[in-house]
Amino acid sequence: MRIVIVGGVAAGMSAAARARRLDESAEIIVLERGEHVSFANCGLPYYVGGEIEDRAKLLVQTPASLREALNLDVRIHHNVTSLDADTKQLTVQTPTGAQQLSYDTLILSPGAFALRPPIDGLDSPRVSTLRTVDDAIAMRDRVETGARKAVVLGAGFIGIEAAEALRMQGLEVDIVEFAPHVLPPLETEIAVPVTAELRRLGITVNDGIAAQAIEPGADRDTVILSDGRRIDADLIVLSVGVRPDTAVFEAAGVACDRGAMLVDEHGRTSLPGVYAAGDATVSVDRVTGIKRPVALAGPANRAGRQIADHILRPAQARPIPSAVGTAIVRVGELTAAMTGANRASLQQAGIEFDTLHLHPAQHAGYFPGAQSMALVVHIRRGDGLVLGAQGVGPEGVDKRIDVLATAIRAGFTAADLIDLDLAYSPVYGSAKDPVNMAGMVGSNVVDGTLKLWYAEEWEALREESLILDVRSVAEFAAGHLPGSLNVPHTELRERIAEVEAAAAGRAVRVLCGSGVRSHIAHRALTQLGYDSASLSGGMVTVRAVLGDAILVR
Amino acid sequence: MRIVIVGGVAAGMSAAARARRLDESAEIIVLERGEHVSFANCGLPYYVGGEIEDRAKLLVQTPASLREALNLDVRIHHNVTSLDADTKQLTVQTPTGAQQLSYDTLILSPGAFALRPPIDGLDSPRVSTLRTVDDAIAMRDRVETGARKAVVLGAGFIGIEAAEALRMQGLEVDIVEFAPHVLPPLETEIAVPVTAELRRLGITVNDGIAAQAIEPGADRDTVILSDGRRIDADLIVLSVGVRPDTAVFEAAGVACDRGAMLVDEHGRTSLPGVYAAGDATVSVDRVTGIKRPVALAGPANRAGRQIADHILRPAQARPIPSAVGTAIVRVGELTAAMTGANRASLQQAGIEFDTLHLHPAQHAGYFPGAQSMALVVHIRRGDGLVLGAQGVGPEGVDKRIDVLATAIRAGFTAADLIDLDLAYSPVYGSAKDPVNMAGMVGSNVVDGTLKLWYAEEWEALREESLILDVRSVAEFAAGHLPGSLNVPHTELRERIAEVEAAAAGRAVRVLCGSGVRSHIAHRALTQLGYDSASLSGGMVTVRAVLGDAILVR
Repeated sequence: MRIVIVGGVAAGMSAAARARRLDESAEIIVLERGEHVSFANCGLPYYVGGEIEDRAKLLVQTPASLREALNLDVRIHHNVTSLDADTKQLTVQTPTGAQQLSYDTLILSPGAFALRPPIDGLDSPRVSTLRTVDDAIAMRDRVETGARKAVVLGAGFIGIEAAEALRMQGLEVDIVEFAPHVLPPLETEIAVPVTAELRRLGITVNDGIAAQAIEPGADRDTVILSDGRRIDADLIVLSVGVRPDTAVFEAAGVACDRGAMLVDEHGRTSLPGVYAAGDATVSVDRVTGIKRPVALAGPANRAGRQIADHILRPAQARPIPSAVGTAIVRVGELTAAMTGANRASLQQAGIEFDTLHLHPAQHAGYFPGAQSMALVVHIRRGDGLVLGAQGVGPEGVDKRIDVLATAIRAGFTAADLIDLDLAYSPVYGSAKDPVNMAGMVGSNVVDGTLKLWYAEEWEALREESLILDVRSVAEFAAGHLPGSLNVPHTELRERIAEVEAAAAGRAVRVLCGSGVRSHIAHRALTQLGYDSASLSGGMVTVRAVLGDAILVR
Repeated sequence: MRIVIVGGVAAGMSAAARARRLDESAEIIVLERGEHVSFANCGLPYYVGGEIEDRAKLLVQTPASLREALNLDVRIHHNVTSLDADTKQLTVQTPTGAQQLSYDTLILSPGAFALRPPIDGLDSPRVSTLRTVDDAIAMRDRVETGARKAVVLGAGFIGIEAAEALRMQGLEVDIVEFAPHVLPPLETEIAVPVTAELRRLGITVNDGIAAQAIEPGADRDTVILSDGRRIDADLIVLSVGVRPDTAVFEAAGVACDRGAMLVDEHGRTSLPGVYAAGDATVSVDRVTGIKRPVALAGPANRAGRQIADHILRPAQARPIPSAVGTAIVRVGELTAAMTGANRASLQQAGIEFDTLHLHPAQHAGYFPGAQSMALVVHIRRGDGLVLGAQGVGPEGVDKRIDVLATAIRAGFTAADLIDLDLAYSPVYGSAKDPVNMAGMVGSNVVDGTLKLWYAEEWEALREESLILDVRSVAEFAAGHLPGSLNVPHTELRERIAEVEAAAAGRAVRVLCGSGVRSHIAHRALTQLGYDSASLSGGMVTVRAVLGDAILVR
């Protein structure tokens, strides 16, 4: 049996290694267009930034090491130019000319290529992507040979990592992002602290604006923004997204959706004997059911492994799971991460949901070093099914997002999150972990114990409601929403007549610092007969969503 | 409605706060025997050690703050001395004499008291527990007034924390633990690195030995061990375990099992209108079904909250979940944590299981700072249900244990762990996270792809098998099992004749550094017709279980 694998990075190499472990006798050939296989593609920005000093670290395996350990036949600089599924033949462009190669089973993991937006001058030699080891080496060479100014086009995960890496090397860095904020899959509440951290690092963030053209110059290029601003650059990183690299296979008859190969739950394409995995395939989102390519290393690796299972022992093969889509990025001293669906995808899918905002510390508040994070959790209206979560903060975000990713895979509701026994000592967490707290808040929302209002609604609510700020007098004085009444939650019961008078029959919309005290006040008010609601996330979320400028001091 | 709560720390205070949020009109009285309510009991060792500098930090709430925020009637120095469930009356010893107090609903959260083993001299004033704020204040006072030598009796979680705290304050510290190793609920493989770390901190660990007597002296006491050794001490910490503090309530007719109150899934005791939660109640272990008290803050807090739900809106109240029993401790620069069942409890429950050992890094190996952890995972034989997990290492242990705790709550199998989408960037994890890897190894064991052997079996296997060490020549030379044959895994296919000759028809038991290379070799050997198995955890586990002394260099 000859298994031929096209593309030797995440999915392809996992498939090859697993196939060998399952079948000592199979002939396993890996065709890689580039110079390197099984390289650390997620490490490239850190090589550019110098945290990974030695480029050899990026090369996790080599063709020689793979032959020795796993008896794999890895052929670099082998580019597949056509496929004939009827005769099971590939045409391969090699350093010594074109070859025909037959297969019994074919696995396609060609990956994706960088999107090239319609920007004049994008073919300047100062423009580069950051997708291969060679890209990273070239970029670091430019940094080490005097580049002083960089522009990063596109502030997705890789763009952000590239911007920070270049800044760490001392360059002046501008980010240009067309979407309203960096890391567009993140909610505004999470992206705002990320933007602030990028600025603290000294990176200029230009969001909500397009790059219109690149003007080549003798010493430097100039990036021209749609508002006419001009930014000089020795180095321009193109990171506006990727597109599946499937033209050859689509031409050969592999069914695709907008260029991404369609696969079934075992990774089979529409052609017999042809499997596919990784960034070039369509995944089904576990939460929304939306179908789209998911360019993440983890799912690609695991899909490759599961395809090998299906090829070599189909009766035991488990289906490739739907995608939860967990992602994470370090930004300076912050971590930002997401799992499951965000607002936009839930709205696109027509799923009704409520959003919870929490600002818990990573560990007990009484233990030194406690620092709060922002957590946003979306739950399904009605039953509280956990649909998605995002977080940002200096510590403990990765842990909570991984727990929530596991909860989403398990089909847990908010109430189920209450029951999780998470590891508690004051060094690591709280007796009520942030995830437990999210469950308590969500469960209260589901059963009606807690009625939330949102910072976005303030403008519409401020006339028709009494905005009641239950923080301390000092907190209130340091900045509050205009027109709000301050009654500290500890004085609410004795000063209820003031609230009564100020409300004048209107609803009461309560707020505090992060939502804990306003919940207590809201419960009291509700039982006293008021139409009351508690602001989700409190003033921390107000500041992120409405900005500081709105506050009265 | 008058709700009376006995005990104002974790479970009791959570019940009180939740009850108020659900019912503004209820009369809620909390009776606390001690001076403090809602104090940070898990923070006490860190106050002793000085990491928490200010004792005020330990007092999360006070009676006054609880009255202001939640209109709770908190009465300290109120000790319940009898209960009459027929007339719904308590007798309470107060600073001003005995009182009668009636209730409509009663919640018992009296907690536990320290076990006092039969050791002569235990009533010395130099012996103290570490269970209250006053204990912690007194202990730190002794440290600050010249105590130089401490002995900690009992190396459970609190004992370990106390020992490290005293060491941080510069004391000479001896730990005495009767069990074969510190932190007895941990497996040997996990406890061995903890013991080494304690010694690195300069703490003397006396394990597998009893303290027989305490001889009072003028300047110092002397702790006498069962082998006759004598250890001087200015300060002796007693932390050999706890017992539910329930004599009053058992006498009143609350059904108990070995002193712990029996409760149903809503926290109801055998007496009408009497609920109980926390350390003084029996929990059902989710994995083994074993019933025993679980002295953990998280479950206590949540049970208190759920009892308030059942009292005030029984139709909506969710059951209190069975206990997964997750626990964690920092030891110097290490974290040790556990969730679910350990070997001993699985054996006690008669559950057949396989154990997986992994030594993954906390994040991508190519990113600077990668350090390996030890993970032990028990899975049910046959279906691979995840039964329990433990870990120890410098970074990332808490995250993996929390994810595994969530997986246990979800009823996940090893195969399900493969599918988890955990947050990956080289800073935070690997494309195949340690939890995914545990799933892959476990799934391979379940379906027979991977046959494991264990370090404990070495003595029995060494004659009847060829022990094949597939590490590099240099690794082998640095220390290997006597009588083992070295063929690096990269040379296995070409040197198979050597293996054939050495095996001479016997089974082949393969090992490497941590189990990855031996798995590859094992798969090749199996397909070549050998009776082969791969050592779970490799040499790292050999060193932990058999010790370094056995190795040949």
